[in-house]
Amino acid sequence: MKIDILTLFPEMFTGVFGSSILKHAAEKGQVTFNVVDFRNYAENKHRKVDDYPYGGGAGMVLMPQPIFDAVDDLVKDKQTKPRVVLLCPQGERYTQKKAEELAKEEHLILVCGHYEGFDERIREHLVTDEISIGDYVLTGGELGAMVITDSVTRLLPGVLGNETSAVTDSFSTGLLEHPHYTRPADFRGMKVPDVLLSGHHENIKNWRHEQSIERTKKRRPDLLND
Amino acid sequence: MKIDILTLFPEMFTGVFGSSILKHAAEKGQVTFNVVDFRNYAENKHRKVDDYPYGGGAGMVLMPQPIFDAVDDLVKDKQTKPRVVLLCPQGERYTQKKAEELAKEEHLILVCGHYEGFDERIREHLVTDEISIGDYVLTGGELGAMVITDSVTRLLPGVLGNETSAVTDSFSTGLLEHPHYTRPADFRGMKVPDVLLSGHHENIKNWRHEQSIERTKKRRPDLLND
Repeated sequence: MKIDILTLFPEMFTGVFGSSILKHAAEKGQVTFNVVDFRNYAENKHRKVDDYPYGGGAGMVLMPQPIFDAVDDLVKDKQTKPRVVLLCPQGERYTQKKAEELAKEEHLILVCGHYEGFDERIREHLVTDEISIGDYVLTGGELGAMVITDSVTRLLPGVLGNETSAVTDSFSTGLLEHPHYTRPADFRGMKVPDVLLSGHHENIKNWRHEQSIERTKKRRPDLLND
Repeated sequence: MKIDILTLFPEMFTGVFGSSILKHAAEKGQVTFNVVDFRNYAENKHRKVDDYPYGGGAGMVLMPQPIFDAVDDLVKDKQTKPRVVLLCPQGERYTQKKAEELAKEEHLILVCGHYEGFDERIREHLVTDEISIGDYVLTGGELGAMVITDSVTRLLPGVLGNETSAVTDSFSTGLLEHPHYTRPADFRGMKVPDVLLSGHHENIKNWRHEQSIERTKKRRPDLLND
Protein backbone atom coordinates (compact mmCIF):
# COMPACT_ATOMS: atom_id res chain seq x y z
CA MET A 1 0.00 0.00 0.00
CA LYS A 2 1.08 3.55 -0.69
CA ILE A 3 -0.03 6.35 1.63
CA ASP A 4 0.54 9.92 0.45
CA ILE A 5 -0.07 12.71 2.91
CA LEU A 6 -0.66 16.30 1.80
CA THR A 7 0.14 18.78 4.55
CA LEU A 8 1.64 22.19 5.24
CA PHE A 9 3.53 20.74 8.23
CA PRO A 10 5.52 17.76 6.92
CA GLU A 11 7.92 17.88 9.89
CA MET A 12 5.05 16.85 12.21
CA PHE A 13 5.14 13.30 10.83
CA THR A 14 8.81 12.48 11.41
CA GLY A 15 8.52 11.19 14.99
CA VAL A 16 5.40 9.09 14.46
CA PHE A 17 6.44 7.53 11.15
CA GLY A 18 9.94 6.83 12.50
CA SER A 19 8.76 4.73 15.47
CA SER A 20 7.43 1.33 16.34
CA ILE A 21 5.17 -0.58 13.97
CA LEU A 22 4.96 2.13 11.29
CA LYS A 23 8.73 2.27 10.99
CA HIS A 24 9.07 -1.51 10.76
CA ALA A 25 6.25 -1.84 8.23
CA ALA A 26 7.92 0.77 6.00
CA GLU A 27 11.33 -0.89 6.36
CA LYS A 28 9.88 -4.26 5.39
CA GLY A 29 8.23 -2.66 2.34
CA GLN A 30 4.69 -3.46 3.49
CA VAL A 31 3.74 0.19 3.14
CA THR A 32 5.25 3.35 1.66
CA PHE A 33 4.70 6.68 3.39
CA ASN A 34 5.16 9.84 1.36
CA VAL A 35 4.65 13.20 3.07
CA VAL A 36 4.15 16.06 0.59
CA ASP A 37 4.14 19.76 1.41
CA PHE A 38 1.37 21.02 -0.88
CA ARG A 39 2.75 24.54 -0.58
CA ASN A 40 5.24 23.33 -3.22
CA TYR A 41 2.34 23.29 -5.69
CA ALA A 42 1.27 26.90 -5.11
CA GLU A 43 1.44 28.73 -8.41
CA ASN A 44 1.65 32.28 -7.10
CA LYS A 45 5.04 33.78 -6.37
CA HIS A 46 4.51 34.05 -2.61
CA ARG A 47 3.66 30.32 -2.37
CA LYS A 48 0.36 31.29 -0.81
CA VAL A 49 -2.10 28.40 -0.32
CA ASP A 50 -4.98 30.23 1.35
CA ASP A 51 -7.03 33.34 0.72
CA TYR A 52 -9.95 35.31 2.21
CA PRO A 53 -13.40 33.70 2.11
CA TYR A 54 -15.89 34.89 -0.50
CA GLY A 55 -18.77 36.51 1.32
CA GLY A 56 -16.56 37.67 4.20
CA GLY A 57 -15.94 36.20 7.62
CA ALA A 58 -13.06 35.24 9.89
CA GLY A 59 -10.22 32.89 8.98
CA MET A 60 -8.55 31.95 5.75
CA VAL A 61 -9.69 29.26 3.32
CA LEU A 62 -7.42 26.78 1.53
CA MET A 63 -7.47 27.45 -2.21
CA PRO A 64 -8.37 24.64 -4.61
CA GLN A 65 -5.42 24.99 -7.00
CA PRO A 66 -2.46 23.70 -4.92
CA ILE A 67 -4.37 20.66 -3.61
CA PHE A 68 -5.91 19.73 -6.98
CA ASP A 69 -2.49 20.00 -8.63
CA ALA A 70 -0.76 17.97 -5.91
CA VAL A 71 -3.29 15.15 -6.26
CA ASP A 72 -3.00 15.25 -10.07
CA ASP A 73 0.75 14.86 -9.70
CA LEU A 74 0.47 11.92 -7.26
CA VAL A 75 -1.88 9.95 -9.49
CA LYS A 76 -0.39 10.73 -12.89
CA ASP A 77 1.48 7.44 -13.39
CA LYS A 78 -0.99 5.24 -11.53
CA GLN A 79 -3.32 2.64 -13.05
CA THR A 80 -5.51 2.48 -9.94
CA LYS A 81 -7.77 5.22 -8.65
CA PRO A 82 -6.76 6.29 -5.14
CA ARG A 83 -9.03 7.02 -2.21
CA VAL A 84 -8.61 10.71 -1.48
CA VAL A 85 -9.46 11.28 2.17
CA LEU A 86 -10.05 14.72 3.62
CA LEU A 87 -9.56 15.02 7.37
CA CYS A 88 -12.20 17.41 8.67
CA PRO A 89 -14.61 17.86 11.59
CA GLN A 90 -17.65 17.54 9.30
CA GLY A 91 -16.56 14.15 8.02
CA GLU A 92 -17.89 10.69 8.72
CA ARG A 93 -16.74 9.50 12.15
CA TYR A 94 -13.79 7.16 11.83
CA THR A 95 -14.29 3.59 13.08
CA GLN A 96 -12.46 0.29 12.96
CA LYS A 97 -14.83 -0.77 10.18
CA LYS A 98 -13.67 2.17 8.07
CA ALA A 99 -10.03 1.28 8.83
CA GLU A 100 -10.69 -2.25 7.53
CA GLU A 101 -12.26 -0.79 4.39
CA LEU A 102 -9.32 1.55 3.73
CA ALA A 103 -6.81 -1.25 4.38
CA LYS A 104 -8.03 -2.98 1.21
CA GLU A 105 -6.97 -0.08 -1.01
CA GLU A 106 -3.68 0.11 -2.90
CA HIS A 107 -3.32 3.86 -2.69
CA LEU A 108 -4.54 6.37 -0.11
CA ILE A 109 -4.08 10.12 -0.30
CA LEU A 110 -4.76 11.88 3.01
CA VAL A 111 -5.33 15.63 2.83
CA CYS A 112 -4.68 17.66 6.00
CA GLY A 113 -6.03 21.19 6.23
CA HIS A 114 -6.19 23.97 8.72
CA TYR A 115 -9.12 24.37 11.01
CA GLU A 116 -10.23 27.44 9.04
CA GLY A 117 -11.46 25.27 6.22
CA PHE A 118 -11.12 24.01 2.67
CA ASP A 119 -12.59 25.52 -0.45
CA GLU A 120 -15.80 23.56 -0.96
CA ARG A 121 -14.76 22.50 -4.48
CA ILE A 122 -12.06 20.31 -2.94
CA ARG A 123 -14.72 18.42 -1.01
CA GLU A 124 -17.15 18.17 -3.89
CA HIS A 125 -14.91 17.30 -6.80
CA LEU A 126 -11.65 15.87 -5.52
CA VAL A 127 -12.09 13.82 -2.37
CA THR A 128 -13.75 10.42 -2.12
CA ASP A 129 -14.07 10.35 1.70
CA GLU A 130 -14.34 12.93 4.45
CA ILE A 131 -13.30 11.59 7.83
CA SER A 132 -13.37 12.98 11.36
CA ILE A 133 -11.49 11.04 14.03
CA GLY A 134 -13.77 12.38 16.77
CA ASP A 135 -15.93 15.19 18.12
CA TYR A 136 -13.18 17.53 19.26
CA VAL A 137 -11.41 20.48 17.68
CA LEU A 138 -7.83 20.01 16.53
CA THR A 139 -5.43 22.50 15.01
CA GLY A 140 -5.20 20.63 11.71
CA GLY A 141 -5.77 17.33 9.98
CA GLU A 142 -2.28 16.01 10.71
CA LEU A 143 -3.15 14.03 13.86
CA GLY A 144 -6.10 12.54 12.01
CA ALA A 145 -3.83 11.46 9.16
CA MET A 146 -1.52 9.79 11.68
CA VAL A 147 -4.48 7.99 13.28
CA ILE A 148 -5.64 6.68 9.90
CA THR A 149 -2.12 5.68 8.88
CA ASP A 150 -1.50 3.80 12.13
CA SER A 151 -4.85 2.01 12.28
CA VAL A 152 -4.73 1.01 8.59
CA THR A 153 -1.08 -0.07 8.56
CA ARG A 154 -1.68 -2.42 11.52
CA LEU A 155 -4.24 -4.27 9.39
CA LEU A 156 -1.97 -4.89 6.39
CA PRO A 157 -0.85 -8.51 5.86
CA GLY A 158 2.33 -9.37 7.75
CA VAL A 159 2.60 -6.13 9.72
CA LEU A 160 1.62 -7.55 13.12
CA GLY A 161 3.38 -10.65 14.36
CA ASN A 162 1.39 -13.76 15.24
CA GLU A 163 1.62 -13.06 18.94
CA THR A 164 -0.17 -9.74 18.56
CA SER A 165 -3.05 -10.58 16.29
CA ALA A 166 -5.42 -7.72 15.59
CA VAL A 167 -8.43 -10.00 15.93
CA THR A 168 -8.76 -9.97 19.71
CA ASP A 169 -8.44 -6.21 20.07
CA SER A 170 -11.38 -4.22 21.35
CA PHE A 171 -13.82 -3.17 18.60
CA SER A 172 -12.98 -6.32 16.63
CA THR A 173 -14.82 -8.63 19.04
CA GLY A 174 -17.68 -6.29 19.94
CA LEU A 175 -16.77 -6.47 23.65
CA LEU A 176 -14.31 -4.45 25.67
CA GLU A 177 -11.31 -6.36 26.92
CA HIS A 178 -11.27 -8.02 30.33
CA PRO A 179 -8.84 -6.70 32.98
CA HIS A 180 -5.19 -7.72 32.71
CA TYR A 181 -2.80 -8.37 35.59
CA THR A 182 0.90 -9.12 35.70
CA ARG A 183 3.66 -9.34 38.29
CA PRO A 184 3.88 -8.72 41.19
CA ALA A 185 0.86 -10.54 42.65
CA ASP A 186 0.86 -8.00 45.48
CA PHE A 187 1.92 -4.44 44.61
CA ARG A 188 1.76 -1.97 47.51
CA GLY A 189 -1.03 -4.07 49.02
CA MET A 190 -3.04 -4.17 45.77
CA LYS A 191 -3.61 -7.79 44.87
CA VAL A 192 -4.28 -9.82 41.75
CA PRO A 193 -7.67 -11.66 41.83
CA ASP A 194 -7.26 -15.22 43.16
CA VAL A 195 -8.85 -16.85 40.15
CA LEU A 196 -6.00 -15.69 37.89
CA LEU A 197 -3.47 -17.38 40.19
CA SER A 198 -5.51 -20.59 40.47
CA GLY A 199 -4.22 -22.27 37.32
CA HIS A 200 -7.80 -23.39 36.59
CA HIS A 201 -8.16 -22.56 32.90
CA GLU A 202 -11.91 -22.97 32.65
CA ASN A 203 -12.54 -20.67 35.62
CA ILE A 204 -10.11 -18.10 34.25
CA LYS A 205 -11.83 -18.16 30.88
CA ASN A 206 -15.26 -17.74 32.46
CA TRP A 207 -14.10 -14.93 34.75
CA ARG A 208 -12.59 -13.04 31.85
CA HIS A 209 -15.70 -13.41 29.71
CA GLU A 210 -17.91 -12.17 32.56
CA GLN A 211 -15.60 -9.23 33.18
CA SER A 212 -15.67 -8.34 29.48
CA ILE A 213 -19.45 -8.33 29.38
CA GLU A 214 -19.75 -6.42 32.64
CA ARG A 215 -17.25 -3.80 31.57
CA THR A 216 -18.96 -3.38 28.19
CA LYS A 217 -22.38 -3.04 29.88
CA LYS A 218 -21.05 -0.42 32.25
CA ARG A 219 -18.90 1.62 29.90
CA ARG A 220 -20.18 1.08 26.39
CA PRO A 221 -23.70 -0.39 26.37
CA ASP A 222 -24.04 0.87 22.79
CA LEU A 223 -21.60 -1.84 21.63
CA LEU A 224 -23.95 -4.57 22.90
CA ASN A 225 -26.90 -3.22 20.93
CA ASP A 226 -25.15 -3.15 17.57
CA MET B 1 -0.60 24.41 32.53
CA LYS B 2 1.89 21.58 32.74
CA ILE B 3 1.36 18.46 30.63
CA ASP B 4 3.50 15.42 31.45
CA ILE B 5 3.39 12.49 29.09
CA LEU B 6 4.49 9.02 30.11
CA THR B 7 5.47 6.88 27.13
CA LEU B 8 7.92 4.25 25.93
CA PHE B 9 8.31 6.18 22.65
CA PRO B 10 9.29 9.75 23.57
CA GLU B 11 10.75 10.40 20.11
CA MET B 12 7.23 10.14 18.63
CA PHE B 13 6.32 13.54 20.09
CA THR B 14 9.13 15.65 18.68
CA GLY B 15 7.51 16.55 15.36
CA VAL B 16 4.06 17.35 16.72
CA PHE B 17 5.21 19.35 19.75
CA GLY B 18 7.74 21.24 17.62
CA SER B 19 5.16 22.60 15.15
CA SER B 20 2.47 25.18 14.78
CA ILE B 21 0.31 26.22 17.74
CA LEU B 22 1.82 23.77 20.25
CA LYS B 23 5.31 25.08 19.60
CA HIS B 24 4.24 28.71 19.92
CA ALA B 25 2.25 28.07 23.09
CA ALA B 26 5.27 26.41 24.70
CA GLU B 27 7.60 29.21 23.58
CA LYS B 28 5.27 31.82 25.05
CA GLY B 29 5.16 29.87 28.34
CA GLN B 30 1.40 29.23 28.15
CA VAL B 31 2.01 25.50 28.54
CA THR B 32 4.93 23.23 29.44
CA PHE B 33 5.28 19.84 27.74
CA ASN B 34 7.37 17.19 29.43
CA VAL B 35 7.76 13.81 27.73
CA VAL B 36 9.00 11.10 30.11
CA ASP B 37 10.19 7.63 29.14
CA PHE B 38 8.76 5.52 31.95
CA ARG B 39 11.25 2.78 31.16
CA ASN B 40 13.65 4.96 33.16
CA TYR B 41 11.66 4.00 36.27
CA ALA B 42 11.93 0.23 35.78
CA GLU B 43 13.61 -1.24 38.85
CA ASN B 44 14.81 -4.50 37.34
CA LYS B 45 18.22 -4.64 35.70
CA HIS B 46 16.90 -5.27 32.16
CA ARG B 47 14.67 -2.15 32.37
CA LYS B 48 11.70 -4.36 31.61
CA VAL B 49 8.30 -2.65 31.89
CA ASP B 50 6.00 -5.50 30.89
CA ASP B 51 5.49 -9.12 31.83
CA TYR B 52 3.27 -12.11 31.00
CA PRO B 53 -0.40 -11.92 32.05
CA TYR B 54 -1.52 -13.85 35.12
CA GLY B 55 -3.93 -16.50 33.99
CA GLY B 56 -2.26 -16.87 30.60
CA GLY B 57 -3.08 -15.43 27.19
CA ALA B 58 -1.42 -13.56 24.34
CA GLY B 59 0.43 -10.29 24.64
CA MET B 60 2.38 -8.63 27.43
CA VAL B 61 0.94 -6.47 30.19
CA LEU B 62 2.47 -3.24 31.52
CA MET B 63 3.61 -3.70 35.11
CA PRO B 64 2.34 -1.33 37.79
CA GLN B 65 5.69 -0.42 39.36
CA PRO B 66 7.33 1.78 36.68
CA ILE B 67 4.17 3.80 36.05
CA PHE B 68 3.29 4.25 39.75
CA ASP B 69 6.85 5.37 40.47
CA ALA B 70 6.96 7.77 37.51
CA VAL B 71 3.71 9.45 38.63
CA ASP B 72 4.97 9.64 42.23
CA ASP B 73 8.06 11.40 40.97
CA LEU B 74 6.12 13.89 38.84
CA VAL B 75 3.82 14.94 41.68
CA LYS B 76 6.29 14.96 44.56
CA ASP B 77 6.85 18.73 44.72
CA LYS B 78 3.33 19.73 43.65
CA GLN B 79 0.67 21.32 45.82
CA THR B 80 -2.11 20.50 43.39
CA LYS B 81 -3.42 17.06 42.55
CA PRO B 82 -3.00 16.28 38.85
CA ARG B 83 -5.48 14.61 36.55
CA VAL B 84 -3.89 11.32 35.55
CA VAL B 85 -5.34 10.30 32.19
CA LEU B 86 -4.92 6.82 30.77
CA LEU B 87 -5.31 6.56 27.00
CA CYS B 88 -7.09 3.29 26.27
CA PRO B 89 -9.79 1.83 24.01
CA GLN B 90 -12.07 1.08 26.98
CA GLY B 91 -12.07 4.69 28.13
CA GLU B 92 -14.72 7.36 27.94
CA ARG B 93 -14.98 8.73 24.41
CA TYR B 94 -13.16 12.02 24.12
CA THR B 95 -15.26 15.06 23.21
CA GLN B 96 -14.82 18.81 23.03
CA LYS B 97 -16.65 19.05 26.36
CA LYS B 98 -13.99 16.87 27.97
CA ALA B 99 -11.27 19.01 26.38
CA GLU B 100 -12.86 22.09 27.98
CA GLU B 101 -12.93 20.30 31.34
CA LEU B 102 -9.26 19.29 31.13
CA ALA B 103 -8.24 22.80 30.00
CA LYS B 104 -9.21 24.07 33.47
CA GLU B 105 -6.61 21.90 35.22
CA GLU B 106 -3.14 23.05 36.23
CA HIS B 107 -1.46 19.72 35.75
CA LEU B 108 -2.24 16.82 33.43
CA ILE B 109 -0.37 13.53 33.31
CA LEU B 110 -1.13 11.49 30.19
CA VAL B 111 -0.18 7.81 30.31
CA CYS B 112 0.38 6.02 26.99
CA GLY B 113 0.46 2.24 26.92
CA HIS B 114 0.75 -0.51 24.39
CA TYR B 115 -2.27 -2.12 22.86
CA GLU B 116 -1.62 -5.27 24.90
CA GLY B 117 -2.86 -3.59 28.03
CA PHE B 118 -2.16 -2.14 31.45
CA ASP B 119 -2.13 -3.95 34.75
CA GLU B 120 -5.61 -3.32 36.15
CA ARG B 121 -4.22 -1.78 39.35
CA ILE B 122 -2.99 1.19 37.30
CA ARG B 123 -6.56 1.85 36.20
CA GLU B 124 -8.10 1.28 39.59
CA HIS B 125 -5.71 3.07 41.90
CA LEU B 126 -3.66 5.58 39.93
CA VAL B 127 -5.60 7.17 37.10
CA THR B 128 -8.43 9.69 37.44
CA ASP B 129 -9.69 9.43 33.85
CA GLU B 130 -9.63 6.81 31.10
CA ILE B 131 -10.05 8.29 27.65
CA SER B 132 -10.47 6.81 24.18
CA ILE B 133 -10.18 9.18 21.22
CA GLY B 134 -12.39 6.95 19.07
CA ASP B 135 -13.60 3.46 18.17
CA TYR B 136 -10.55 2.29 16.28
CA VAL B 137 -7.47 0.30 17.22
CA LEU B 138 -4.16 2.14 17.48
CA THR B 139 -0.70 0.81 18.24
CA GLY B 140 -0.40 2.80 21.44
CA GLY B 141 -1.70 5.73 23.43
CA GLU B 142 0.72 8.23 21.92
CA LEU B 143 -1.57 9.58 19.19
CA GLY B 144 -4.31 9.94 21.79
CA ALA B 145 -1.98 11.93 24.03
CA MET B 146 -1.18 14.22 21.10
CA VAL B 147 -4.88 14.69 20.38
CA ILE B 148 -5.58 15.64 24.00
CA THR B 149 -2.55 17.93 24.16
CA ASP B 150 -3.51 19.75 20.96
CA SER B 151 -7.22 20.12 21.73
CA VAL B 152 -6.57 21.28 25.32
CA THR B 153 -3.72 23.66 24.49
CA ARG B 154 -5.87 25.47 21.91
CA LEU B 155 -8.33 26.31 24.68
CA LEU B 156 -5.80 27.88 27.05
CA PRO B 157 -6.04 31.68 27.46
CA GLY B 158 -4.00 33.59 24.88
CA VAL B 159 -2.99 30.60 22.77
CA LEU B 160 -5.25 31.35 19.79
CA GLY B 161 -5.14 34.83 18.27
CA ASN B 162 -8.31 36.92 18.06
CA GLU B 163 -8.76 36.17 14.41
CA THR B 164 -9.07 32.43 15.05
CA SER B 165 -11.39 32.23 18.00
CA ALA B 166 -12.26 28.73 19.10
CA VAL B 167 -15.88 29.71 19.62
CA THR B 168 -17.09 29.38 16.04
CA ASP B 169 -15.49 26.00 15.43
CA SER B 170 -17.68 22.97 14.82
CA PHE B 171 -18.76 21.21 18.03
CA SER B 172 -18.73 24.53 19.87
CA THR B 173 -21.82 25.86 18.11
CA GLY B 174 -23.71 22.59 17.83
CA LEU B 175 -23.88 22.92 14.03
CA LEU B 176 -21.42 21.87 11.37
CA GLU B 177 -19.77 24.71 9.50
CA HIS B 178 -21.21 26.08 6.26
CA PRO B 179 -19.19 25.65 3.04
CA HIS B 180 -16.26 27.99 2.44
CA TYR B 181 -15.07 29.32 -0.89
CA THR B 182 -12.09 31.41 -1.89
CA ARG B 183 -10.34 32.52 -5.06
CA PRO B 184 -10.63 31.87 -7.95
CA ALA B 185 -14.37 32.33 -8.54
CA ASP B 186 -14.10 29.84 -11.39
CA PHE B 187 -11.61 26.99 -10.99
CA ARG B 188 -11.53 24.49 -13.86
CA GLY B 189 -15.19 25.29 -14.54
CA MET B 190 -16.23 24.80 -10.89
CA LYS B 191 -17.88 27.99 -9.72
CA VAL B 192 -18.46 29.77 -6.44
CA PRO B 193 -22.20 30.18 -5.60
CA ASP B 194 -23.51 33.55 -6.84
CA VAL B 195 -24.80 34.62 -3.44
CA LEU B 196 -21.26 34.76 -2.02
CA LEU B 197 -20.20 37.14 -4.78
CA SER B 198 -23.32 39.33 -4.43
CA GLY B 199 -22.03 41.54 -1.62
CA HIS B 200 -25.49 41.26 0.01
CA HIS B 201 -24.59 40.55 3.65
CA GLU B 202 -28.05 39.52 4.81
CA ASN B 203 -28.45 37.01 1.99
CA ILE B 204 -24.97 35.62 2.62
CA LYS B 205 -25.70 35.22 6.31
CA ASN B 206 -28.99 33.43 5.61
CA TRP B 207 -27.45 31.15 2.98
CA ARG B 208 -24.67 30.13 5.34
CA HIS B 209 -27.06 29.41 8.18
CA GLU B 210 -29.26 27.28 5.91
CA GLN B 211 -26.23 25.41 4.62
CA SER B 212 -25.05 24.74 8.19
CA ILE B 213 -28.41 23.32 9.21
CA GLU B 214 -28.74 21.28 6.02
CA ARG B 215 -25.25 19.85 6.36
CA THR B 216 -25.79 18.99 10.01
CA LYS B 217 -29.12 17.30 9.21
CA LYS B 218 -27.53 15.26 6.46
CA ARG B 219 -24.26 14.32 8.11
CA ARG B 220 -24.76 14.50 11.85
CA PRO B 221 -28.45 14.53 12.79
CA ASP B 222 -27.38 13.42 16.29
CA LEU B 223 -25.96 16.90 16.96
CA LEU B 224 -29.41 18.49 16.41
CA ASN B 225 -31.06 16.22 18.96
CA ASP B 226 -28.65 16.95 21.80
